Amino acid sequence: MILILKPNLSPDSLECQKLLNHLSSLPNIELRIHHEQGIEQSLTEIHLIGHTAALTVEEMKRLPGVGQVVRVSERYRVLGRHNGDHRPTHFTYQGIRFSQDSLNVFAGLCAVDTRENVELMMRALRDNEQVCTRMGAYKPRTSPYSFQGRGKGCLPYVFELAGKYGIKVIAMEVTHESHIEEIHEALNITGNATGVMLQIGTRNTQNFELLKSAGRQQEFPILLKRGFGINLDESLHAAEYLASEGNRKVIFGLRGMKTNIGDPHRNFVDFAHVSVVKQLTHMPVCIDPSHSVGTRSSGPEGILDIMHVTAQGIVAGANMVLVDFHPEPARALVDGPQALLLKELPYFLEDVQIAWEAYEKRIALNRRYLN
Amino acid sequence: MILILKPNLSPDSLECQKLLNHLSSLPNIELRIHHEQGIEQSLTEIHLIGHTAALTVEEMKRLPGVGQVVRVSERYRVLGRHNGDHRPTHFTYQGIRFSQDSLNVFAGLCAVDTRENVELMMRALRDNEQVCTRMGAYKPRTSPYSFQGRGKGCLPYVFELAGKYGIKVIAMEVTHESHIEEIHEALNITGNATGVMLQIGTRNTQNFELLKSAGRQQEFPILLKRGFGINLDESLHAAEYLASEGNRKVIFGLRGMKTNIGDPHRNFVDFAHVSVVKQLTHMPVCIDPSHSVGTRSSGPEGILDIMHVTAQGIVAGANMVLVDFHPEPARALVDGPQALLLKELPYFLEDVQIAWEAYEKRIALNRRYLN
Amino acid sequence: MILILKPNLSPDSLECQKLLNHLSSLPNIELRIHHEQGIEQSLTEIHLIGHTAALTVEEMKRLPGVGQVVRVSERYRVLGRHNGDHRPTHFTYQGIRFSQDSLNVFAGLCAVDTRENVELMMRALRDNEQVCTRMGAYKPRTSPYSFQGRGKGCLPYVFELAGKYGIKVIAMEVTHESHIEEIHEALNITGNATGVMLQIGTRNTQNFELLKSAGRQQEFPILLKRGFGINLDESLHAAEYLASEGNRKVIFGLRGMKTNIGDPHRNFVDFAHVSVVKQLTHMPVCIDPSHSVGTRSSGPEGILDIMHVTAQGIVAGANMVLVDFHPEPARALVDGPQALLLKELPYFLEDVQIAWEAYEKRIALNRRYLN
Amino acid sequence: MILILKPNLSPDSLECQKLLNHLSSLPNIELRIHHEQGIEQSLTEIHLIGHTAALTVEEMKRLPGVGQVVRVSERYRVLGRHNGDHRPTHFTYQGIRFSQDSLNVFAGLCAVDTRENVELMMRALRDNEQVCTRMGAYKPRTSPYSFQGRGKGCLPYVFELAGKYGIKVIAMEVTHESHIEEIHEALNITGNATGVMLQIGTRNTQNFELLKSAGRQQEFPILLKRGFGINLDESLHAAEYLASEGNRKVIFGLRGMKTNIGDPHRNFVDFAHVSVVKQLTHMPVCIDPSHSVGTRSSGPEGILDIMHVTAQGIVAGANMVLVDFHPEPARALVDGPQALLLKELPYFLEDVQIAWEAYEKRIALNRRYLN
Repeated sequence: MILILKPNLSPDSLECQKLLNHLSSLPNIELRIHHEQGIEQSLTEIHLIGHTAALTVEEMKRLPGVGQVVRVSERYRVLGRHNGDHRPTHFTYQGIRFSQDSLNVFAGLCAVDTRENVELMMRALRDNEQVCTRMGAYKPRTSPYSFQGRGKGCLPYVFELAGKYGIKVIAMEVTHESHIEEIHEALNITGNATGVMLQIGTRNTQNFELLKSAGRQQEFPILLKRGFGINLDESLHAAEYLASEGNRKVIFGLRGMKTNIGDPHRNFVDFAHVSVVKQLTHMPVCIDPSHSVGTRSSGPEGILDIMHVTAQGIVAGANMVLVDFHPEPARALVDGPQALLLKELPYFLEDVQIAWEAYEKRIALNRRYLN
Repeated sequence: MILILKPNLSPDSLECQKLLNHLSSLPNIELRIHHEQGIEQSLTEIHLIGHTAALTVEEMKRLPGVGQVVRVSERYRVLGRHNGDHRPTHFTYQGIRFSQDSLNVFAGLCAVDTRENVELMMRALRDNEQVCTRMGAYKPRTSPYSFQGRGKGCLPYVFELAGKYGIKVIAMEVTHESHIEEIHEALNITGNATGVMLQIGTRNTQNFELLKSAGRQQEFPILLKRGFGINLDESLHAAEYLASEGNRKVIFGLRGMKTNIGDPHRNFVDFAHVSVVKQLTHMPVCIDPSHSVGTRSSGPEGILDIMHVTAQGIVAGANMVLVDFHPEPARALVDGPQALLLKELPYFLEDVQIAWEAYEKRIALNRRYLN
Repeated sequence: MILILKPNLSPDSLECQKLLNHLSSLPNIELRIHHEQGIEQSLTEIHLIGHTAALTVEEMKRLPGVGQVVRVSERYRVLGRHNGDHRPTHFTYQGIRFSQDSLNVFAGLCAVDTRENVELMMRALRDNEQVCTRMGAYKPRTSPYSFQGRGKGCLPYVFELAGKYGIKVIAMEVTHESHIEEIHEALNITGNATGVMLQIGTRNTQNFELLKSAGRQQEFPILLKRGFGINLDESLHAAEYLASEGNRKVIFGLRGMKTNIGDPHRNFVDFAHVSVVKQLTHMPVCIDPSHSVGTRSSGPEGILDIMHVTAQGIVAGANMVLVDFHPEPARALVDGPQALLLKELPYFLEDVQIAWEAYEKRIALNRRYLN
Repeated sequence: MILILKPNLSPDSLECQKLLNHLSSLPNIELRIHHEQGIEQSLTEIHLIGHTAALTVEEMKRLPGVGQVVRVSERYRVLGRHNGDHRPTHFTYQGIRFSQDSLNVFAGLCAVDTRENVELMMRALRDNEQVCTRMGAYKPRTSPYSFQGRGKGCLPYVFELAGKYGIKVIAMEVTHESHIEEIHEALNITGNATGVMLQIGTRNTQNFELLKSAGRQQEFPILLKRGFGINLDESLHAAEYLASEGNRKVIFGLRGMKTNIGDPHRNFVDFAHVSVVKQLTHMPVCIDPSHSVGTRSSGPEGILDIMHVTAQGIVAGANMVLVDFHPEPARALVDGPQALLLKELPYFLEDVQIAWEAYEKRIALNRRYLN
């Protein structure tokens, strides 16, 4: 059960303290407090965990300071949608809104290789009015003998160039808690020239210790990729590890499921789950067409499969796209075969726009139909 | 290797007979002749099977009567796309064009239950200017103790009502070769009031004897559903069983793959393969959103997942949609939970239209970009 | 609900007729009668289908002629194990007992190619005191352009040679109902020199029309292979199609599941389900190590994986083994890479014996432990 | 390419230094040195990584100090079996031999709950002459709101009780690098009363940072569980992360694969891969029947499925068994439904013994047959 306190009621206030004293006396109930400091107002939630069946919503609503009461189901306590639950489905980072109603494209390098390529990428983004990107510094690879990413060494020039070209958010995978600190420091050194969205990859979806570390900091929002080999429910529970530690700026990423029935695509594209995740949770949903498809194959019209599945995700309401580009795919150190060319960027963005407009028309049609 | 003869050259002509005589003398080569009688012209193909590596395209092109020569790869000899292969990707049935460039919606009853419901469905279709439908008379069910469909008994009234309401093609599953004959007879009795597209379901994708029977007739086009538990390549090979027996009016149907990683959907939606099938073969591609999703769940905007995945299939170029409706889903004998309501038909069709227009814009954008 | 009549009570007897009259008057209950004519006694069962919840076991037991009453769950009505259900788990065919307590090895040719190879195989079997074999005449193949089996043409010499070498039962796949008749006729022509167990392969597990045809005859027992792409429950329901039509001489075959997580084996070996099938149903369980493993790879000790998984199936109680041999695997037309050599037959049989003795010791240990 | 130096040749010796100097001068070759200090002798390997194609085995064999040269394939450089590779397939820890030829049973608690239960378990083990066990202190759970294990708090009494009852090795899962240090310290405090085998679970199979940490220490051997959702090849590559950091005391664990086609078992039992892993690598192979099966269901003979699959793993050569027991399964905090009872321990061990003897007979038969 979640008690959402009246806006701007501080956890330190007398009213809140009295409330907490009372709640602490309830038998078999544990309390967790979550405080969110927004720009205009602050919001405090008290989560009651344990034998809450004995409590009624009405009884709780009557307590001083309590604004709203949500009886949560067992599943996805913090991030899930529950009956009568009007909590927000968005957050803002670096001035950019991430929500279940918005769309942000993160085109960039799967793996940072050279400063030159980073700059070519950033410039192309700026020239196409993009303010987000993806840049992989830490790369988890199947074999220990494969290239493992440039690591923290590349962070300073990546961040500096981001600042130079007006990039506000970089999605960047981390595979160890120390990477978070390394990113924090490198950002500091470059005068916080840009922002970072921590990305947790599919191999670490159930690396709960890494999730806890990422969830304990609130500086960076987090993109959690769905795990392969587990079902959707388990991946959504993994997102709760982030939220239960205090960070709710979480985006959930679909990237295809590993199974040979998805052949000839690299993974079985799972973007039909876009609306499912939005229905079950408050999280905006990201799609990763590059890793899902994994090749530059195209249909008979000449349109790349990567672009077809991007359109499929967006026409059903995806809120973020993570997509690989590279100045010279043939020389990319990781996943070259799936990278788009820099000259394809404006075309890609225009194709995204067509799908997004179709989604908006579908929303309008639905509203008209429901009335 | 396929020799496509000059148009209107009859297999009985002297020129063709001489050609056949010559080809018969080639060592280790077996011949198969395929003759297609169109409205305006006829087309004859001679397929050379066996040790064709020894033959050159140039040599074959010089033979009298030969118009075009296609060296086929081993995969999908008849239905596959091969290098330099400009064979058509469409056919016409009952005046309706089925192609890789067109879109036809087959809304209807998963299983015929009563004459009243069939009529309600047909009338709703006519009122919405639809000329195709789906009607299940023979239902394969997991348990022998479940309702197995009305069988041939319902065919007369189904066909008669179709004629009454201007329906030109009914997609109808067959599970035994005798059903084809039963359908043929019932159509005859009703004065061929309508047409039928034979549907072969996912449980029978590799029921090769049924495929051969369906392939041996050329009266009805065939919708072959993808098999679950096998990969795409194997399902496409199954389609070849139809074509190798002589029937190329084949549409390939995607209906989701059976695996729990698709939960909470009934099946794992596989519409990302729309463009793959179109690239590998000449077949138009059908999507079945009802069986893929299997429920009436909807996203936070209130749009049904069935409609989301329909839009996803179409925005990537799907050519046919098979979708379940029912006047009273709660009383449907089969798959009620996934049926749309009759009153949702115009809304569904309008939503389909939005996605199709987006697809057309994407095609236009691609052409502009490539030039 | 199943009423098992007193032994030797004929369905035509007055007592039985009176019983049927009474049962027919029960509201919302449909009757199915199953009569099994054994050598020493006959057994009649009356299946009550429909609203049986209103009936009590005691009430039914009091009816004249009724010996035993079994309230069946919904699942696997005929073949399933139900509470208080002591129906037999065996049958006899050609003097050979097939049961959940016995073991029969069916070594033979995956596909019949030449009369010489059939004779070499049969002779090797006789020399090793084997009376069962497998011989494939009708082969379902992924591509229509692959070898499809010798068909009915080979049946006469296969059956004749079987008779010559004392083979009593041949497991033989059928893919169309006409094959059953062809086998019946060819057996007749050769003076019923041997017997046949019809085999229904994994591609046809849910080819319900074929199952019904096979189930309607009681001359031949049936080996039903588990279907890939469906779960175990659905495959067991498929076996019910055979039984509900009247044939209960059914053996259930495990042959590995098609998924790349089974790599490098051809299929994911599923022999852990041996005891599950025996627990859920009355069917003896067959394992097919050749198709499961699909290669002649071996462990570091030099023991073939095919032999390892055979031992695994048997040590847990498998009742039948279907295994591919070939005089010259390199020249086999189908599945050569997985065939054992004729000279390996005595070794294979001895290895099987070791595992079977271990299973018997495990049974004895369990009895000792439970007491 | 691996150069195995002559026994007892120290890396610091002049001969070795000269060799290294020479090797360092080879173009495009990187060196890694691995030194193993055994009780009776030491062994040094020099791994050449990079463009080794230019080098010949003969040339390398002629270099001073070099005893054996192994040209490794790309896969599983350190742990893999390569042509002409006679490196050992065993190691010793706490006086116990772990090898591809031995069998060790680790019966114990899935999750430590109370000191009483730990003591009951340990006593039962001693009474049955067992010197190994499993004890879970750190439990990764799908939901952050589930019991997460007793953590380091329980280590002192677990280790102390192990010492008291003569347990020499405890398999214990770690989910964070800090756990290794915590275990090390707690062992120290209890005077190293016992030993620990670090266990890395299926959710962390590709948590490469954890693997690197575990691989960097050589105090504890490591049991790496196979990952679900990835294929066997990828899991074996993960083991290389341990070895490439220096720790080769690695056991590979099979625990079933997560897919609904394994139903009604919790996971799809994958013990057919026992011989595959032994063939591809030098690692002993562990099976985890408890997590594979996940229930106490039993076949018609009354033998638990958990015991059936244990016998299946062992009869094919498994070298280690990880199995859950609990004094009161109904009150276990984690995975109670799959736990065996303490009174079943002697029965379980006897059943294991039957399967192991069958395996030994099969080995002997194979030797006889090959000669």
